[in-house]
Amino acid sequence: MLRLTSCDHVLTILLILLSLYLFDAQKSRFLFHDMSAEVVDSNPYSRLMALQRMGIVQNYERIREFSVAIVGIGGVGSVAAEMLTRCGLGRLLLYDYDKVELANMNRLFFRPEQVGMTKTDAAVQTLSDINPDVVLESYTLNITTVQGFETFMSSLKNKTFCPSKEGSGVDLVLSCVDNYEARMVVNQACNELNQTWMESGVSEDAVSGHIQLLIPGETACFACAPPLVVASGVDERTLKREGVCAASLPTTMGVVAGLLVQNTLKFLLKFGHVSPYLGYSSLKDFFPTMAMKPNPHCSNAACLERQKDYILAKPARDAVAKAKMEAEASAAAAADVPLHVDNEWNISVVDDNELDSTCGSSSGALPEGLTHELPSADEFPKPPASRATDTTIDDLDDLRRQLDALNAD
Amino acid sequence: MLRLTSCDHVLTILLILLSLYLFDAQKSRFLFHDMSAEVVDSNPYSRLMALQRMGIVQNYERIREFSVAIVGIGGVGSVAAEMLTRCGLGRLLLYDYDKVELANMNRLFFRPEQVGMTKTDAAVQTLSDINPDVVLESYTLNITTVQGFETFMSSLKNKTFCPSKEGSGVDLVLSCVDNYEARMVVNQACNELNQTWMESGVSEDAVSGHIQLLIPGETACFACAPPLVVASGVDERTLKREGVCAASLPTTMGVVAGLLVQNTLKFLLKFGHVSPYLGYSSLKDFFPTMAMKPNPHCSNAACLERQKDYILAKPARDAVAKAKMEAEASAAAAADVPLHVDNEWNISVVDDNELDSTCGSSSGALPEGLTHELPSADEFPKPPASRATDTTIDDLDDLRRQLDALNAD
Repeated sequence: MLRLTSCDHVLTILLILLSLYLFDAQKSRFLFHDMSAEVVDSNPYSRLMALQRMGIVQNYERIREFSVAIVGIGGVGSVAAEMLTRCGLGRLLLYDYDKVELANMNRLFFRPEQVGMTKTDAAVQTLSDINPDVVLESYTLNITTVQGFETFMSSLKNKTFCPSKEGSGVDLVLSCVDNYEARMVVNQACNELNQTWMESGVSEDAVSGHIQLLIPGETACFACAPPLVVASGVDERTLKREGVCAASLPTTMGVVAGLLVQNTLKFLLKFGHVSPYLGYSSLKDFFPTMAMKPNPHCSNAACLERQKDYILAKPARDAVAKAKMEAEASAAAAADVPLHVDNEWNISVVDDNELDSTCGSSSGALPEGLTHELPSADEFPKPPASRATDTTIDDLDDLRRQLDALNAD
Repeated sequence: MLRLTSCDHVLTILLILLSLYLFDAQKSRFLFHDMSAEVVDSNPYSRLMALQRMGIVQNYERIREFSVAIVGIGGVGSVAAEMLTRCGLGRLLLYDYDKVELANMNRLFFRPEQVGMTKTDAAVQTLSDINPDVVLESYTLNITTVQGFETFMSSLKNKTFCPSKEGSGVDLVLSCVDNYEARMVVNQACNELNQTWMESGVSEDAVSGHIQLLIPGETACFACAPPLVVASGVDERTLKREGVCAASLPTTMGVVAGLLVQNTLKFLLKFGHVSPYLGYSSLKDFFPTMAMKPNPHCSNAACLERQKDYILAKPARDAVAKAKMEAEASAAAAADVPLHVDNEWNISVVDDNELDSTCGSSSGALPEGLTHELPSADEFPKPPASRATDTTIDDLDDLRRQLDALNAD
């Protein structure tokens, strides 16, 4: 029945081709191969590049060189993936074996029309639409199986994206899984590869969560301080109650994903303080922090190896730190600027006269219409000068003579 | 050229109609008119209703009765709207006058194919796809104009959705705007309507933010403690530097939106502690909190009115609180349960013997395989009984006689 010779059909096909072309042209508008800092509404990177102008990040464009692996594309992992995609990360590796269900719709990211797709396929669909500049690699597998673990390990080792990179092929692994077994597998892989990673989690009652930074050998690994119940050898699966489903909220998961990716950005782009552990207890808005040293009796053999490496590398680390400090000091001396311009209290050596003139000018620096509510300390009436301070002391001999006279009284 | 009599055309039209029907059937699968608590993957509300089973929320389904207005559908407002939509809120009112730009793509929510649409239209498109159960009302207007303010006020007053509701037509207003002028307009509207609202903001350098709860008359309003520069009458616009665009990050905005909607859920569904103010300083992961009383010399006349109302209503509030306490006490007495089971430190009057038996049973409650590392306090050797405590004092007369004897020594 579909005779392509009909003139009307040719027209229909032409119309379809035209719409496909227009759709593709529309999409290609969003392909940016370099990160422009230009302040125009058509530049998707302008508000990120502004972090440089604001003095927060030294070189934002470096984000294009980094690879981040996200294990578990659920309520936290999917949002973390979207945030990194919108930040313009170089390469994102995604791991999950689950399918999108309607029961996931109470968390951000997945849409009802994606129900039935694998989470990895649905994520790649959404993320590549948002930012085609990010290199996406997805792995539909369960890392707790033998085959899955092998593929996981070899994908982390692959250095094709940035062959000059030291260590593994990724800069950071984010664990966004929902069970202890999978966390222990990520821990094993990262200990074996000497790979820095961040762990995240949300409680079963949906109202608290945490993120944690794990650097093999330097901080506690996930097996260094296992939960009490797990340490006692009780099978995690027996803890789950029959027919009880865990609660979840888009808020708690969104906050945990945000804290996780913020810590990731601070770690990769070297700004602010990277938190070793940050908790979020939403009922009281309490955010505990702490740091954990590795356990010298850790049950994980690879962790013990990394601890040994870390201790052996101490002299080399100290030498690097010393050289860096000396280089900074000599650079500062050469440039004749204060030694520690970036110290927390902005302390620097300033000439007394210069200080006076700076203080003096500060009242003049108030915006138009502003006045000081209270007089400045300089304007308080000076206490009447006492006899002792009134006396001009020229040198040490004078002082000694006066002291002798007082003693003679 | 398009002759509908052609058999091929009829087929084409039939195919189009069939696809439209299938698409619509697909969409209608996600329409749920009651919140089922059934634990199946096809129930989008199962993980929310689990909050009840977990004892966090008493009646989650009440969320269907609430109306929330979001002013400003940018980096914070759009994510807040998505979170509330996925939580199954009853009704959402959206206000913005801006259009989606490519420069917004570094924040969550809007997609590149929505560039050029108004933010309100794009938001309604995305949100109604995610959850068609939520009643969406969008207003493409600038609330700082006379006409915009009038429409804003009348939309807040409209009680069609829940005619029995006290006060205005909405339960909460969320301010997610990016400038002081718009915040002052929301403040004015909420003071006039005696409307509780929450304010949110993210710093120009993208690395910190805050949320704040404002209850007219009870807490400080936005004009009670204005920033110094604004208080001095300097025009906000003169503070913006030419050609400088503010930085933004999906992380900071996602965290602020999450904290804002979490506080909203706690406020509406009455669980946990609703924070009066919560800051987020991401460089050091510092989260300051505070509370602010209203300023009796506030420049906003409506605020002063609300403060007067609040003071006048004190006897009534006290009476309600007293009646509630008495009802609880008598209910507790009738049920023979501790008076304050929900107090912060779980203090309750417990019989001494009962306490002993509870403490004793706690060691038996440890999971299999666990032992106490240290002995319990009860097992420490008791100090030898002293002479004074050994003496049995029967009544007050005995005590007096002993005291007299000591004084006579």
